[in-house]
Amino acid sequence: MTAFADLHHEDEPLLLPNAWDHASARALGGQGFRAIATTSLGVAAVAGLPDGVAATREETLRLAFALGSEPFQLSVDAEGGFSDDPDEVAEFARELYAVGAVGINLEDGLGPVARHAAKIAAVKEAAPTLFVNARTDTHWLGDGDTTDTLTRLDAYRQAGADGVFVPGLTDLRRIAALVHHLDVPLNVLYSPGGPPVAHLADVGVRRISLGSLLYRRALGAALEAVADIRAGRPPKGATPSYDEVALPPTR
Amino acid sequence: MTAFADLHHEDEPLLLPNAWDHASARALGGQGFRAIATTSLGVAAVAGLPDGVAATREETLRLAFALGSEPFQLSVDAEGGFSDDPDEVAEFARELYAVGAVGINLEDGLGPVARHAAKIAAVKEAAPTLFVNARTDTHWLGDGDTTDTLTRLDAYRQAGADGVFVPGLTDLRRIAALVHHLDVPLNVLYSPGGPPVAHLADVGVRRISLGSLLYRRALGAALEAVADIRAGRPPKGATPSYDEVALPPTR
Repeated sequence: MTAFADLHHEDEPLLLPNAWDHASARALGGQGFRAIATTSLGVAAVAGLPDGVAATREETLRLAFALGSEPFQLSVDAEGGFSDDPDEVAEFARELYAVGAVGINLEDGLGPVARHAAKIAAVKEAAPTLFVNARTDTHWLGDGDTTDTLTRLDAYRQAGADGVFVPGLTDLRRIAALVHHLDVPLNVLYSPGGPPVAHLADVGVRRISLGSLLYRRALGAALEAVADIRAGRPPKGATPSYDEVALPPTR
Repeated sequence: MTAFADLHHEDEPLLLPNAWDHASARALGGQGFRAIATTSLGVAAVAGLPDGVAATREETLRLAFALGSEPFQLSVDAEGGFSDDPDEVAEFARELYAVGAVGINLEDGLGPVARHAAKIAAVKEAAPTLFVNARTDTHWLGDGDTTDTLTRLDAYRQAGADGVFVPGLTDLRRIAALVHHLDVPLNVLYSPGGPPVAHLADVGVRRISLGSLLYRRALGAALEAVADIRAGRPPKGATPSYDEVALPPTR
């Protein structure tokens, strides 16, 4: 098992914060996170691109390239792999692995089960040690149908997924039932209004992603600060000094 | 006078927030700011590059290209123009102007006065309507010597600067004296521990930049949020929804 896979089997679940650019990843690394993921929404927004389109593929790879040699495990949120063609998705995974990523997150967007399974199988063949986190959007985009969720996750597992991700699932009883059904680590999305980390841990969740939450909070805090300054108030909250902003040496 | 230059002569000084990527610029635009600047520190950190080196030139242009067609006036923080050669700086300014920027900020880094003046003159010749904000680092990097500050600003003004910028200057009496001396708008850097906007306005400051403050606060807020989640507390503060994160249509 790879070092990244091992992080899914420690005493505590893997709390995986999602970075949106180089500095945010380094800042999170500075907080002691051994693994950091990217957020596709954040990466797209930084570059001024819509989420989920092929144009974000290059931005995603660019960020992975910049972060692949950092001293943390890097998992890349690759949307649906930026293609319907399993071979193209596999090629992208190979590129991510080559620049140092150790994990990839692939979402089904509620598309055909067989197509997503074929992508997963192709990725595992292209980069066998890349941890494939297979996401289903049954709760995120759909109505959370249990049969559909299980059908999809079983198919993705059979195709070689190393873990599965069900964003939007926050009900602890349903999470516990899903954990009982699975033989791979379950990843859920942290929700500010949902269960805290400790409760998710109690029911067997092995990985907790923050998605775009940190990115959206960062933007929100910048808007709060500028509103304060406009109103004649000093901005509130922690502000890293110039020295604390991680500016790396030239590559 | 251009629309951007006009903003330096309204009843209130121009409060110019600095964006570091596409989404932060759009979010600030959504708060009603008619003009938005970039922060070179932020742009460099986003890309994982050191501040002040030639490699950030392309990132700076890339962001200007992405923002040049947005419905706000765009002023670009171009460090020292990424070259010691006035012709190269002029070419960079021409490129920024071509993609839609209406202002450029050029810092002297306490280098030779004549060299910085030559850059300013070359930029004004290459892009006459680009608002050149000439920054001296006498207070930022130096000891704030008044004679040196005036010598530099006078030389930059003679070379064609449309405005001057003295980051690190926060003493209201010194600011007032400098305003009295100048016949172009004075830009200062807002400091959380310094005078509020209204006091700066009272002494005649015409433009107030936020520099990297919003960027650093954004990073700080993300770290606060992840620390809260780790500790079992829901994160504090405003968090824009998915829909509020400005994801533009494909260009």
